[in-house]
Amino acid sequence: MRAGLLHGVVIEVFGTAAAAHRHPDLPELAGDRWTLVERDVLAALADTVQPQGVVARCAIPSAQLAQVLARRPQLLAVAVDVRDPGNAGTLIRCADAAGAAAVVLAGESVDSWNPKAVRASAGSVFHLDLPADRDVAGTLAALRTAGLRLLAADGSGERDLDELADAGALTGPTAWIFGNEAHGLTDDVRQQADDVVRVPIHGRAESLNLATAAAVCLYASARAMRTGGGAD
Amino acid sequence: MRAGLLHGVVIEVFGTAAAAHRHPDLPELAGDRWTLVERDVLAALADTVQPQGVVARCAIPSAQLAQVLARRPQLLAVAVDVRDPGNAGTLIRCADAAGAAAVVLAGESVDSWNPKAVRASAGSVFHLDLPADRDVAGTLAALRTAGLRLLAADGSGERDLDELADAGALTGPTAWIFGNEAHGLTDDVRQQADDVVRVPIHGRAESLNLATAAAVCLYASARAMRTGGGAD
Repeated sequence: MRAGLLHGVVIEVFGTAAAAHRHPDLPELAGDRWTLVERDVLAALADTVQPQGVVARCAIPSAQLAQVLARRPQLLAVAVDVRDPGNAGTLIRCADAAGAAAVVLAGESVDSWNPKAVRASAGSVFHLDLPADRDVAGTLAALRTAGLRLLAADGSGERDLDELADAGALTGPTAWIFGNEAHGLTDDVRQQADDVVRVPIHGRAESLNLATAAAVCLYASARAMRTGGGAD
Repeated sequence: MRAGLLHGVVIEVFGTAAAAHRHPDLPELAGDRWTLVERDVLAALADTVQPQGVVARCAIPSAQLAQVLARRPQLLAVAVDVRDPGNAGTLIRCADAAGAAAVVLAGESVDSWNPKAVRASAGSVFHLDLPADRDVAGTLAALRTAGLRLLAADGSGERDLDELADAGALTGPTAWIFGNEAHGLTDDVRQQADDVVRVPIHGRAESLNLATAAAVCLYASARAMRTGGGAD
């Protein structure tokens, strides 16, 4: 809510007196966009079963992949066929934290403005560019043309994330590709990638879930880009 | 299910004919622990709305912290007051993947055998020791006595994870402490820790969620322990 107000996407805010009392900065931030409403009005507006007392109407920012790439991003995430809105939102939050410029919602991925995705992103949908494109092959080709190295994250990847970091292969502009929660990445996507990379599993877990694997990969890139090379 | 069968904690398995057809290895793994049941019987046994066709009765393994510490673990996670079973299960899965020996469920943390925690762990509840202890201060004192460095993960921590890794401070035996989803760590826990550590936020996200922060911290330790020191 605060992120939306600060970044100019909020058109109007409806809040209860109790919410205004709990968060006195919200009516202040909202200014003449603030409307005081009764609890039952708010409940009818809200999407959740137990609303927190404020609802905002927002303009959905739109971003085209070409515009994003024209700004020469160093780090991007690409979600391919990520269907669960909670996963998509958490991925957007992670990508934001790791300093990525954008998350591309490719193929059959869920809309980044799905209410559950927005909530899981904890405000990060307002921080990053979130272009969507159904054409996965075309998206990946555009990323490569823009000079990004395409790293596909996959538990069965032939290269180990630590090995890539040690080899200094994470320091350049990178697009990390994450696949569907249940089915992973298609063969087509793996073949288009420069490398298919696995997060090392040191214990007996079969895999990591999408968001935790993405966090490890994106932070490995963020660290490599800042330290400039391999470990040791 | 397979993890439970392989690790000897499954006492008996109830499955439908359809499930046996889909997963022919399950009746085989279960042997004389397998009982064929009708769909409505299975539905009555199962905890989920759309059961997958097999239900197992398991013995809950119990682990005492003292036994865990006697095996001189190199990497542990401690959940303090982690209430959401999905978060606890995902943390257990992450800790397993990163090679941790145990996850200690301390304070008011949810039971690791909560059905949602078991599902979120994707089998990892059967791989790790999961001692529970209400006494947070006593737990942390026991970990310190066992020679573990106590690192408390907190978004407002005074030390940066990368800085610790660069300083070679992640190579020794380490217990990572993760706090409640909404309220973080108490002052008492911060004061007992050797360091309060923040995952660096490179973008504009306010924070990471529990599981993704834990993944980044635990993997930073796993990597440091294997490469033996700071970056560069």
